[in-house]
Amino acid sequence: MAKIPESAKQVFAGEIFEVWQWDQEMYDGTTATFERLKRPDTCEVFVVIDDKIIIQRQQQPDRPHPFLSIVGGRIEPGEDALTGAKRETLEETGYASDDWEEIAARMPHSKMEWTIYVYIARGAKKVAEQSLDGGEIIELESKTLDELIDLVDRNELCSLEQEVRMDLLRAKYDPAVKAAWKERLFKK
Amino acid sequence: MAKIPESAKQVFAGEIFEVWQWDQEMYDGTTATFERLKRPDTCEVFVVIDDKIIIQRQQQPDRPHPFLSIVGGRIEPGEDALTGAKRETLEETGYASDDWEEIAARMPHSKMEWTIYVYIARGAKKVAEQSLDGGEIIELESKTLDELIDLVDRNELCSLEQEVRMDLLRAKYDPAVKAAWKERLFKK
Repeated sequence: MAKIPESAKQVFAGEIFEVWQWDQEMYDGTTATFERLKRPDTCEVFVVIDDKIIIQRQQQPDRPHPFLSIVGGRIEPGEDALTGAKRETLEETGYASDDWEEIAARMPHSKMEWTIYVYIARGAKKVAEQSLDGGEIIELESKTLDELIDLVDRNELCSLEQEVRMDLLRAKYDPAVKAAWKERLFKK
Repeated sequence: MAKIPESAKQVFAGEIFEVWQWDQEMYDGTTATFERLKRPDTCEVFVVIDDKIIIQRQQQPDRPHPFLSIVGGRIEPGEDALTGAKRETLEETGYASDDWEEIAARMPHSKMEWTIYVYIARGAKKVAEQSLDGGEIIELESKTLDELIDLVDRNELCSLEQEVRMDLLRAKYDPAVKAAWKERLFKK
């Protein structure tokens, strides 16, 4: 959806974002400078313990209030998405799983080359302590599927990929969609 | 949610995006360079004619396929959001209304200073021809509320503000939510 054309040139590279520009031929034969962003891909992980999903209550130094999200973070350069998801899960929660499934990989923004990978990590086990950097404060909570759906319905969960979010809202109303989520998350 | 701190400095200004950076004190006393984007605010307009909503089938020169969206575009520098919404509506559709209501104004992205303003323009009347620039091809269609909800449910509508999108999905299942949308869109 938002792949940057091969003719584009990088005009800025920052801490997170790169800016790319190219000359785009328009429908009337004129040319305009078009612009797009590139940023590191991210992962979002439904970490499942028994019949609950781990939720993070997180503080970041540039945000005024704590916020809730599922586990996740940036994929590092040279890292494949699944490896990054396993690393972020271990760092943020101390949990590991040997039953991973990718359920989505989508570009949410038409002007940004940025893919969000969404995973389920079933049967997670505590194998280490949290290992956070100086810009993270993360407390873990665990929620039932119904509680997770309520958080989505009340728009209290940050950074959840949009189609996944929509499908969790559907699960509030449609028993078949909820049953599919139960099967996907808990294999039951 | 994503206001850039006053201490931030602009490190790049492109065609659409500006990049800003600042030194952020972390929880452990260290300092890191934080980065955020700024871009022009945008508007999205439910243009209502009788009991239907105008939908655009749009082509853009850097996108491989046509896509559907509601009316909208960028607010220009110095322009207030409502003035921009009226201008975009007139340019893209040739329609005008004297019954406008703002139904949302939200920042969708935690790392970008960018507000999406969502309006309803009721009882719209054709007052001019479309006036498109060289990078736009826009065909107009009109949809009933049920057809609009189906487009949202099938994820076929681009660029719709997320909470508005969620609430249109709710209207598929919850008759009270659908009745509220009917009242809001059509005043009946």
